Amino acid sequence: MQLHQSTWQEVETYLSQSKGIIIPIGSTEQHGPTGLIGTDAICAEKVAHGVGEEASAMVAPTINVGMALHHTAFPGTISLRPSTMIVYIKDYLTSLARAGFQRFFFINGHGGNIATLKATFSECYDHFATLNIPEQEKIKCTVANWFMIRDVYMLAKELYGDQEGSHATPSEVALTQFVYPEMIKTAPLEKEVAKGHPIYGASNFRRCYPDGRMGSNPSLATPEHGQRFYELAVKNLTQSYLEFIS
Amino acid sequence: MQLHQSTWQEVETYLSQSKGIIIPIGSTEQHGPTGLIGTDAICAEKVAHGVGEEASAMVAPTINVGMALHHTAFPGTISLRPSTMIVYIKDYLTSLARAGFQRFFFINGHGGNIATLKATFSECYDHFATLNIPEQEKIKCTVANWFMIRDVYMLAKELYGDQEGSHATPSEVALTQFVYPEMIKTAPLEKEVAKGHPIYGASNFRRCYPDGRMGSNPSLATPEHGQRFYELAVKNLTQSYLEFIS
Amino acid sequence: MQLHQSTWQEVETYLSQSKGIIIPIGSTEQHGPTGLIGTDAICAEKVAHGVGEEASAMVAPTINVGMALHHTAFPGTISLRPSTMIVYIKDYLTSLARAGFQRFFFINGHGGNIATLKATFSECYDHFATLNIPEQEKIKCTVANWFMIRDVYMLAKELYGDQEGSHATPSEVALTQFVYPEMIKTAPLEKEVAKGHPIYGASNFRRCYPDGRMGSNPSLATPEHGQRFYELAVKNLTQSYLEFIS
Amino acid sequence: MQLHQSTWQEVETYLSQSKGIIIPIGSTEQHGPTGLIGTDAICAEKVAHGVGEEASAMVAPTINVGMALHHTAFPGTISLRPSTMIVYIKDYLTSLARAGFQRFFFINGHGGNIATLKATFSECYDHFATLNIPEQEKIKCTVANWFMIRDVYMLAKELYGDQEGSHATPSEVALTQFVYPEMIKTAPLEKEVAKGHPIYGASNFRRCYPDGRMGSNPSLATPEHGQRFYELAVKNLTQSYLEFIS
Amino acid sequence: MQLHQSTWQEVETYLSQSKGIIIPIGSTEQHGPTGLIGTDAICAEKVAHGVGEEASAMVAPTINVGMALHHTAFPGTISLRPSTMIVYIKDYLTSLARAGFQRFFFINGHGGNIATLKATFSECYDHFATLNIPEQEKIKCTVANWFMIRDVYMLAKELYGDQEGSHATPSEVALTQFVYPEMIKTAPLEKEVAKGHPIYGASNFRRCYPDGRMGSNPSLATPEHGQRFYELAVKNLTQSYLEFIS
Amino acid sequence: MQLHQSTWQEVETYLSQSKGIIIPIGSTEQHGPTGLIGTDAICAEKVAHGVGEEASAMVAPTINVGMALHHTAFPGTISLRPSTMIVYIKDYLTSLARAGFQRFFFINGHGGNIATLKATFSECYDHFATLNIPEQEKIKCTVANWFMIRDVYMLAKELYGDQEGSHATPSEVALTQFVYPEMIKTAPLEKEVAKGHPIYGASNFRRCYPDGRMGSNPSLATPEHGQRFYELAVKNLTQSYLEFIS
Repeated sequence: MQLHQSTWQEVETYLSQSKGIIIPIGSTEQHGPTGLIGTDAICAEKVAHGVGEEASAMVAPTINVGMALHHTAFPGTISLRPSTMIVYIKDYLTSLARAGFQRFFFINGHGGNIATLKATFSECYDHFATLNIPEQEKIKCTVANWFMIRDVYMLAKELYGDQEGSHATPSEVALTQFVYPEMIKTAPLEKEVAKGHPIYGASNFRRCYPDGRMGSNPSLATPEHGQRFYELAVKNLTQSYLEFIS
Repeated sequence: MQLHQSTWQEVETYLSQSKGIIIPIGSTEQHGPTGLIGTDAICAEKVAHGVGEEASAMVAPTINVGMALHHTAFPGTISLRPSTMIVYIKDYLTSLARAGFQRFFFINGHGGNIATLKATFSECYDHFATLNIPEQEKIKCTVANWFMIRDVYMLAKELYGDQEGSHATPSEVALTQFVYPEMIKTAPLEKEVAKGHPIYGASNFRRCYPDGRMGSNPSLATPEHGQRFYELAVKNLTQSYLEFIS
Repeated sequence: MQLHQSTWQEVETYLSQSKGIIIPIGSTEQHGPTGLIGTDAICAEKVAHGVGEEASAMVAPTINVGMALHHTAFPGTISLRPSTMIVYIKDYLTSLARAGFQRFFFINGHGGNIATLKATFSECYDHFATLNIPEQEKIKCTVANWFMIRDVYMLAKELYGDQEGSHATPSEVALTQFVYPEMIKTAPLEKEVAKGHPIYGASNFRRCYPDGRMGSNPSLATPEHGQRFYELAVKNLTQSYLEFIS
Repeated sequence: MQLHQSTWQEVETYLSQSKGIIIPIGSTEQHGPTGLIGTDAICAEKVAHGVGEEASAMVAPTINVGMALHHTAFPGTISLRPSTMIVYIKDYLTSLARAGFQRFFFINGHGGNIATLKATFSECYDHFATLNIPEQEKIKCTVANWFMIRDVYMLAKELYGDQEGSHATPSEVALTQFVYPEMIKTAPLEKEVAKGHPIYGASNFRRCYPDGRMGSNPSLATPEHGQRFYELAVKNLTQSYLEFIS
Repeated sequence: MQLHQSTWQEVETYLSQSKGIIIPIGSTEQHGPTGLIGTDAICAEKVAHGVGEEASAMVAPTINVGMALHHTAFPGTISLRPSTMIVYIKDYLTSLARAGFQRFFFINGHGGNIATLKATFSECYDHFATLNIPEQEKIKCTVANWFMIRDVYMLAKELYGDQEGSHATPSEVALTQFVYPEMIKTAPLEKEVAKGHPIYGASNFRRCYPDGRMGSNPSLATPEHGQRFYELAVKNLTQSYLEFIS
Repeated sequence: MQLHQSTWQEVETYLSQSKGIIIPIGSTEQHGPTGLIGTDAICAEKVAHGVGEEASAMVAPTINVGMALHHTAFPGTISLRPSTMIVYIKDYLTSLARAGFQRFFFINGHGGNIATLKATFSECYDHFATLNIPEQEKIKCTVANWFMIRDVYMLAKELYGDQEGSHATPSEVALTQFVYPEMIKTAPLEKEVAKGHPIYGASNFRRCYPDGRMGSNPSLATPEHGQRFYELAVKNLTQSYLEFIS
């Protein structure tokens, strides 16, 4: 059940039964020579729609640009500054909270969003307390990172071992291949791939990780793997969502 | 050619040939008893992808939440405040401008975005002048509203006459039906529909327009109409885009 | 009745009879080789005072600096960024709204203000809803552009035809000549005048419009024309104001 | 020489001879039962124009709304929050600084502006250092309060003694009477007038100073006094200005 | 009684007896060749703790970074911009005000903080009025500058005459020597010391005051002097605090 | 070597040898019935000073108010909103970066700061890239949480087992007892202590954790334990710091 494909009267009916909503959040950032720039948004959205179906939950429009400043030295990356992301999501949630939603379940596809998202939640609780929203003290936000689910992590280790890496990973690339099998990219990949450098600013990042990958070998990905990741993620997050709204 | 379905190296190649990019912008807002909440985003995105194909242009991720504060008394609406939209799009364009994009062609699906978008463009030119972006003085932004194209307008008049109205219109509903024929909604529509009230705040808006429609009869829409609108919009905006980047 | 020439007790009395207030808004920007930098503020203020007298309405202090970023490559221009103008007018209206004013009628002298003003109105309605202002849902803002009044437009066409242009126009220059007949400026004007270029950033604007005029021939202006424009504007806007507050 | 009554080419010529500009700043706030709400702006503007003439200096448009939050419990008061005033004046000065102005001489009519103005100057110097303005390190701002000039103060003491007070003073009322002799207001004034209370928030202020006066007896004011204050202020500030720009 | 050395239950008990709190505010800025960078914070904190003991008042954590932009051309200086200081202190006081504190007594060690602090107080009163804080209209803020106390000033004149100067003064250096006798610094001091230049931006300040001192001779300071300043300040400010909260 | 106890010339000398600086960051928040409100700042500062001595590193003034919004339903807590903390630390670091510091090593005492700190670092790198700071691309920030050091964690487990909990822990209380043995607090502690509830807004937090503790038994703390934690933290973080700046 997607908010964008609903009418306002359907939302009104939904709210009489549930206060929960799923919000997919991704990023628009380089994912190495073969990864799609939209990888994080594509994965988060796909998983969120799956959870939405399983849990009969409303799914809000995907936040497709996130906090990816460290990737901005690669063309095609679009990033919000953290202070912008805070105010953006604050507005986003305020509209929903005024309408009566009380459980905001973010399904996140990008590690770089986590810190800012958590900061945003704190800012929002404080903001809601200044508004005249009935039962505002009941509002709860949480973020679930599909790629950090234990089952997903175990499968990635099993399939790729050390070559999973931590950015432009075969697991996320596989999931995008499952979504867009017609968009599988190929490009020569250096065998030696940079890894282990801490993340600082954008120019430093590109110097450390010249082709954008962080320790990963995305050429191992297949659409079939992607389907398996998808199914694991949906199964796990459906359960998490149902616990969250209960 | 969608940015989200490209790699950063493909973007690099694209930039060696073109500095233009298409940015679909919609809204998440009530569209009457039968219109989808995502109508404006769905239409803008569909048309943008069509233009992108015709013009071999890069299409950025859809800005799916816009300036819809006056609709926020209806559940399901999500809106940015204008000051938030300014800073959001400023960050969005700054990333692209630093990468070398110089022509930002917004394809817009929501009348309520226009004022804030124009204000944003002014704010951005001023901001770019403070950054060290080579050739920043060449950067240009423009907004094309698919629903205001003369041919589109004429067809809507021909098909619907006065019942086109100005919000939750049969033309935009038709376009969403063309995109999602499986999502055609039905609901009883009062024959008498409110119209002609100026737009002020959200509670005033809902009082004036109790079911969300503004003078429109969306039950006239058909997917076939939608296709005609789509094709007219793509044809016209492709030409506009090509002129804009030339 | 000017706010600046009233006492607070007179305002208190006024508020017991009317909730309306007129706010002149102009700009501080180049107006070609013979136009006054204050043109837009001078015209808006003059018309506003005329309407104030006709309608027995309170007139607030003139907002004399507006959104003129595209003119800032010419010395003497002063501009707010749109985000600043939003917060400035939000504070301005908040003070008045807390005192009990509910109808804000902007008389505007500058096309470049319109988009930001409309964005500001949206931001303000949303802001007022968060404050404890009695009857805040009754607050309404509107902008009336004296130079866009049909009668004014027709007279300009009749007097100047195509040489009216769209900036540093003979009509607005005429109105300033009517206000300050001792300040009529002369300077050599190129016969060929630029026109038709879209407006982007400041340096681009100056390159396109080297002497600041946009298709206009301000040497056609006379103080007598100015008086006629003034009278037409006052007559029309008095009626608009009275309808707005009723 | 008023900026609003100049053309951009006259400003260009002026800048080839002087980098100085005078900026009148007042307030829109209650001034007791007989004082005009515009008192501070009217006085600052009048004095500024006088100094402008004496010193052949450019005078910018009057900042007619200032920091008057403590007066906002009286109707008719309009105030900026300090954070808004900082960003407003920062934009205002940035435009002028980019054009080449380097000496900003504020002539201030309102004590409540002083703290925020000084804070603003600090913020501006820091901001200018981040812009590419040639010779930005030469930019200087100062504020001259006409009512604090020693000669003005002595005359007020001589004419009114203790009845000068500190708000809605006979001296400032006199100056407005000199400017607008047709606007002299009368109203019954309580003989006993509040004084000596520190200034905190708006509701506290009104409780302490029920009719808006702070220890003053404005009924002593005459237009002739006003002229004397005006002349003293112009003479003194002309000298201050000339020293400032030298 | 220091907030940092209390438990929340002790604070709860304290609030049942008093609504007052002392907030030391200093700066982190150069103090000439022999003055400690923390001078202003060290002095303010020491005096605040003394007053806290004398008056049995709660002392909040020291605000150790203030408004010192004009000193930032000297290494080691850390400054907030005024707009940042406003929002920082607004958050700081909002937490305390929500808990029930109503009298905020700032003990300040830095002249450069005063303007911004006063602006902040205005901003805070206005902000509190928008929150649901019981009795928010009773909230009062004040700033007491220990170095401007008449007795302190007289002693400084007596001990140092003209060599007190106005920055990196022997009086403040003496107070830090009293606090940290093991941290007394020596360095060659030019006999000729700059003085009398107005303060503008940071690079100008350093040009005018090359070693950071403003007309002062800090080599006159002794720890014994410092103790005398401390005792005078504590005695005077204890009385001021008690009056303020009564 | 504390910045507050240095002169600017000593800082200049230091910078010729090292670009690193240690920044202690804590919080001002309830720590249960026996924990000091300043616990997190006290611990971070103590450890930072220890590391500063071991590593001959400069230590900046302690950031003693952090992100503790979820604790604000307990009196005595003072919190910044995340958006405020971002701009506060951005100003803080900008001053230091302009002076030439390039390695910012935060020693943190509060888990609630981590997300916002990481968001801040991203915002700062992006900000520095817009300033004219030489070698700005070399700037690196990192946060080290003393309570998460493996050795510290192991010792806490060994000493307290499950009773370490996650807020108002015996380990942090012990460290404050080591610093202020005269400030050891006692209060009756319920044997049953709440734990395991996720953290949402402030009122929810207090409902879940009525006395402020999260699963901890701080009565197990002793000053001797505190010393052991201190020594472990200093030893470990000295090594981390030296690696970070190398």
